[in-house]
Amino acid sequence: MLTASANRIGVDVHAYRPSESSDRSPGNQLTTASLDDIDALKAFAATVDVVTIETENIPVDTLRMLEEIVPVRPASRVVEIVQDRLFEKQFLQRSGVPVADYGVVDSAADLAREIERLGGTGILKTRRFGYDGKGQSRIGPGDDAETVWSDHGSAPSVVESFVSFDCEISVIAARSQTGDVAMFDPGKNAHREGILRETYVPSGLDPAIEDAARDIAQRILESHDYVGVLGVEFFVVGNDLLVNEMAPRVHNSGHWTQAGCAVDQFEQHVRAVMGMPLGSAERHSDVVMTNLIGNDIDDLDQHLATSNARVHLYGKRETRPGRKMGHVNTIL
Amino acid sequence: MLTASANRIGVDVHAYRPSESSDRSPGNQLTTASLDDIDALKAFAATVDVVTIETENIPVDTLRMLEEIVPVRPASRVVEIVQDRLFEKQFLQRSGVPVADYGVVDSAADLAREIERLGGTGILKTRRFGYDGKGQSRIGPGDDAETVWSDHGSAPSVVESFVSFDCEISVIAARSQTGDVAMFDPGKNAHREGILRETYVPSGLDPAIEDAARDIAQRILESHDYVGVLGVEFFVVGNDLLVNEMAPRVHNSGHWTQAGCAVDQFEQHVRAVMGMPLGSAERHSDVVMTNLIGNDIDDLDQHLATSNARVHLYGKRETRPGRKMGHVNTIL
Repeated sequence: MLTASANRIGVDVHAYRPSESSDRSPGNQLTTASLDDIDALKAFAATVDVVTIETENIPVDTLRMLEEIVPVRPASRVVEIVQDRLFEKQFLQRSGVPVADYGVVDSAADLAREIERLGGTGILKTRRFGYDGKGQSRIGPGDDAETVWSDHGSAPSVVESFVSFDCEISVIAARSQTGDVAMFDPGKNAHREGILRETYVPSGLDPAIEDAARDIAQRILESHDYVGVLGVEFFVVGNDLLVNEMAPRVHNSGHWTQAGCAVDQFEQHVRAVMGMPLGSAERHSDVVMTNLIGNDIDDLDQHLATSNARVHLYGKRETRPGRKMGHVNTIL
Repeated sequence: MLTASANRIGVDVHAYRPSESSDRSPGNQLTTASLDDIDALKAFAATVDVVTIETENIPVDTLRMLEEIVPVRPASRVVEIVQDRLFEKQFLQRSGVPVADYGVVDSAADLAREIERLGGTGILKTRRFGYDGKGQSRIGPGDDAETVWSDHGSAPSVVESFVSFDCEISVIAARSQTGDVAMFDPGKNAHREGILRETYVPSGLDPAIEDAARDIAQRILESHDYVGVLGVEFFVVGNDLLVNEMAPRVHNSGHWTQAGCAVDQFEQHVRAVMGMPLGSAERHSDVVMTNLIGNDIDDLDQHLATSNARVHLYGKRETRPGRKMGHVNTIL
């Protein structure tokens, strides 16, 4: 989707993929090589004006090496923070952004102590490489810390206070190299089994809450001197907001912009990292975005036959449970 | 744009391009070979489920050869008709579709005779390979038939009565393999120097005229047992319609559907030729489509900065006068 948007505004994409795949080839040009293959990375960097990412799980050393040759946006120092839930929370706290109470867990003893402090419940999350609910364990009253820690894989983690939130919203924001900021309207997200299922825009929330979310996103962008699109997920608890997590890239909860805005999050990201002026984030339509997860893809014909629904498939050849195969944007 | 739409609904594209080009490579896979290279055509045909075209100027022999291996949609017999202005007019007349008065011109003497019959004025058009005003000569009172014929290149032609039309509209229609038909709302077209500049939807015309245009498009689709998207251009003269020409493919005057409809003309064409059900042609927004012709591309920054405008560039490296470099869809 980044390639399609880039091409639309005259930008060619050279994609770098770390392993062979039967999925549709991304980019106008493709390098398939390991993320620690220095020669391949150098050859790749020599062909492009700027490097960006579509996942935060790229080794920071790789990004640093690329940064010596060509601009990387967002910068490696931002990605490094976001890759680690602890660094992320510390950064957010330093920026004055509210997060759920949490503790650092490097052992079963840490876990037992922190769970007790948090009132007997919490969510244990690995610091690194978690997404779509992976690397997360819920802890309830009576659960044994030793067992949980061992089942969890004993990886460095944080445990978060269980937040009984009213709903989750996200803000997709963009910042240009000259410091201009554009934010799409906040979307209201519905998750099941830790995976985003639908995003609704407008969110239906009190505009004051939406404004508060925008203010927080602005603060994050500016603390980082960030360039590109940033996704920020919030828990809404009454009239309060807690930041759940942030993503230094286009975000699933921003896919609705393809149908709701003339300039979508993908084009906005390309504009930002290419040093072009940002587009308007104005919304012309109300949209529901529905993810097609795993066997949801079996309902494809029904989606293709739905009025005002635009289907986006990702060219993944193999359907697996929990795998995001595509999404549908329905204009209301 | 066909590739992007095809990919979006899970269809891969193998493009066949007759010559090397510095323009962005089309398709997910590309064969560059001459249109009379039998071996290359056979190898290409062996890799695909169906062949379609994005220009009608493909040798019919090429399409016939491909048809022996794999379905070609629309069929070669339709393309053969549309490639030749005389065959096209004869076909339209046989289908009971009104066209401007015309005569067949194979010599200066034919031209002199037909111009006199048409009242002293007319437009001379080569039967084959004309587009964007190319291969056309206006003839006014006092013009010398010998000189016009010679300047025109003496190619087999038709001369059409000069129609003093109120406006031009077009209907983008699609027909599936099972005979279902879906038509987008008619757009009103503005031309300059023989080239489409803008399309406006809605057209602002009397709904009765729009319905008449739809009826004619339906008749054309059914006469041909057509499969795919068809563009039909009409002159509106008072309450009457004349068909100017038809295109057996996605059409420039249908580019607005990318911003106005969930399923645009490109996806609709892919659905039709792939044997999938057609999508709804429902329009959710009013749109103005503006072509970027030649140096219009110099105004790119302004378009990129316009609210509710989505820019589509075609990846052409070289700007030439009269060359279509891209278009902008503005949602109203």
